[in-house]
Amino acid sequence: MSTNDVVPAGFHAIIPAGGAGTRLWPLSRAARPKFLLDLTGSGRTLLQATVDRLVPLAHGGGITVVTGVAHEEAVRAQIDGVDVITEPSPRHSMAAIGLAAAILAIRHGDIIVGSFAADHVITDDEAFHAAIGEAIETAKAGYLVTIGIKATSPATGFGYIEEGDGLDIAGAPHAKRVAAFVEKPDADTAAEYLASGRFRWNAGMFVVRAQVLLGHLQQQKPDLCAGLVEIARVWDTPQRDEVLERIWPSLEKISIDHALAEPVSEQGWVATVPGDFPWSDVGDFDSIAQVMGTDVVLGDAELVTALDSPGSVVVAGGKRVVTTIGIPNVVVVDTPDAVMVTTREHAQRVKDIVDHLRGSWREDVL
Amino acid sequence: MSTNDVVPAGFHAIIPAGGAGTRLWPLSRAARPKFLLDLTGSGRTLLQATVDRLVPLAHGGGITVVTGVAHEEAVRAQIDGVDVITEPSPRHSMAAIGLAAAILAIRHGDIIVGSFAADHVITDDEAFHAAIGEAIETAKAGYLVTIGIKATSPATGFGYIEEGDGLDIAGAPHAKRVAAFVEKPDADTAAEYLASGRFRWNAGMFVVRAQVLLGHLQQQKPDLCAGLVEIARVWDTPQRDEVLERIWPSLEKISIDHALAEPVSEQGWVATVPGDFPWSDVGDFDSIAQVMGTDVVLGDAELVTALDSPGSVVVAGGKRVVTTIGIPNVVVVDTPDAVMVTTREHAQRVKDIVDHLRGSWREDVL
Repeated sequence: MSTNDVVPAGFHAIIPAGGAGTRLWPLSRAARPKFLLDLTGSGRTLLQATVDRLVPLAHGGGITVVTGVAHEEAVRAQIDGVDVITEPSPRHSMAAIGLAAAILAIRHGDIIVGSFAADHVITDDEAFHAAIGEAIETAKAGYLVTIGIKATSPATGFGYIEEGDGLDIAGAPHAKRVAAFVEKPDADTAAEYLASGRFRWNAGMFVVRAQVLLGHLQQQKPDLCAGLVEIARVWDTPQRDEVLERIWPSLEKISIDHALAEPVSEQGWVATVPGDFPWSDVGDFDSIAQVMGTDVVLGDAELVTALDSPGSVVVAGGKRVVTTIGIPNVVVVDTPDAVMVTTREHAQRVKDIVDHLRGSWREDVL
Repeated sequence: MSTNDVVPAGFHAIIPAGGAGTRLWPLSRAARPKFLLDLTGSGRTLLQATVDRLVPLAHGGGITVVTGVAHEEAVRAQIDGVDVITEPSPRHSMAAIGLAAAILAIRHGDIIVGSFAADHVITDDEAFHAAIGEAIETAKAGYLVTIGIKATSPATGFGYIEEGDGLDIAGAPHAKRVAAFVEKPDADTAAEYLASGRFRWNAGMFVVRAQVLLGHLQQQKPDLCAGLVEIARVWDTPQRDEVLERIWPSLEKISIDHALAEPVSEQGWVATVPGDFPWSDVGDFDSIAQVMGTDVVLGDAELVTALDSPGSVVVAGGKRVVTTIGIPNVVVVDTPDAVMVTTREHAQRVKDIVDHLRGSWREDVL
């Protein structure tokens, strides 16, 4: 594999749309996951904003959303005319992204694919496009390319990418080899990472030639690769359902990080391109506040009265007047059937409430 | 006036039922004031509990509730068969209590009346009955008697009663002359009052012979007295409405404290009997917590999940799941059309929210 290979025809974006976002309850629900919500008050849901952001890059190719059966209808309703791959059941990111890559490779030949989560927020499209542009050039050179998000705090909730030596690739001046992927660190390690300047956040964004991805998968996980290719071969034929039903449940459940990124980085074939744009996985109500930068009101702002509540996050989603007084950084989420109150400091613990309600007589509100 | 006067036939309780309880919004509303609510989770509203507490004392007499036209129907629905005096408009406590006393004096002759707010909480009926028993004996001796509530904190939200010398009255060993009434003090003064041991809280409870009350009123506020007596004379006749409509709007708006208690105490004719029972005016959500002594849940407790929220007050009144995590002393009040979040520390400031919403497009929730 070298830069002498045929230059791919176009860029295709893959958007895995899964995950409930338990820490955003009661705004997010099992039946209404995070990616289907407008969490920035922009008027666009996270999924819609992700598509909007990718359209200018994928003009020569296309956009494919991979989602579960439970959400197919909602996804189609939110984004008109986009290609949707529906998984019969969740089998983690390698199966989802691998199937999409295999289908696209059969349809379009030697293309570049990029995978981007449906439920992250990026607020500087220009910087995002520039980074993906470099990633595409680096992918053309045969690398599996990940975007390394500039770490702005010693976060313990993300995996990190350790940057290695620079790569000398035309059109990708900032591309570097990945020295290592590291799992979510403890607080001390995260602080060291931040201080070193060599570590970036792993946001799970990958750009790679479809054939390169499938080649590595063949090497690392031959059974999984064979299964995905078998499904992909019949995807656009009447045999799709029969083959999918037979093979899908047998596929290994593994993340793309474990299946490909980590082992391939040890072989020296994973690159990283810096993503110096504001990014958030909006994993909890605190990160929504961090993205939006000031007191946050989502839903019907006219219903909200927040007195002496600096840094508050108030969601008025229940058609009710919502008021708060005297609690800095308070989080109040009002919905038609549940209200949740905490502070940004405890935003991660919203999961505890969900755990507490699970199995209770009010499990219907989860 | 002396103890040689005829001993009255019975004790009649007067319950002025007015006041919205703005600091308990959104539980209390203009149309659903505090006294109509069950604020202790007992299954009885404050008004009902007040009646329950007085029935054993008034068995020889009766109970009369004085309320506004807006609440007459709700009052009658809550307490069956009680006598209700309906004020055409609010004219403060002297007119309300004076009218009831005048009507009862005409109906029953030389009786003792006691006035008790409809929206206070007392949790030791036995001690309450003992105190009122002493107050009745003291009233028989010709005094206007107030109950001095044991001060348990340097509260700045109540007026205080300064105790004078002991009175030597049979059956009322703890009765003392009132040295002075003092208005709500500042924090330093309240601390001095508490330390001195001579000051008690004024809860607005008065026990007095009806004729004595009217005699003092005649002396202090002759026009007001004449107007009330004129209405009372025709109360149980077909002329009631005509006379009430004509005279009521002209009556002076003044509290019984200013009209009678203060000037009569200067004449030496006001006594106080200690009320050493737990008492609260449940003026805000903090005082509800103080009365109930632990984490408080009102409404449908099954709907509430409060994790790591010691000292919390949660009202589940909106048929919705209500959850909170990690905020000590949090107050969460959920109702069908409004939700309010604060802490007990800021409980007094709930009034600020009401002020803020007044005149807004959502004034309907007040």
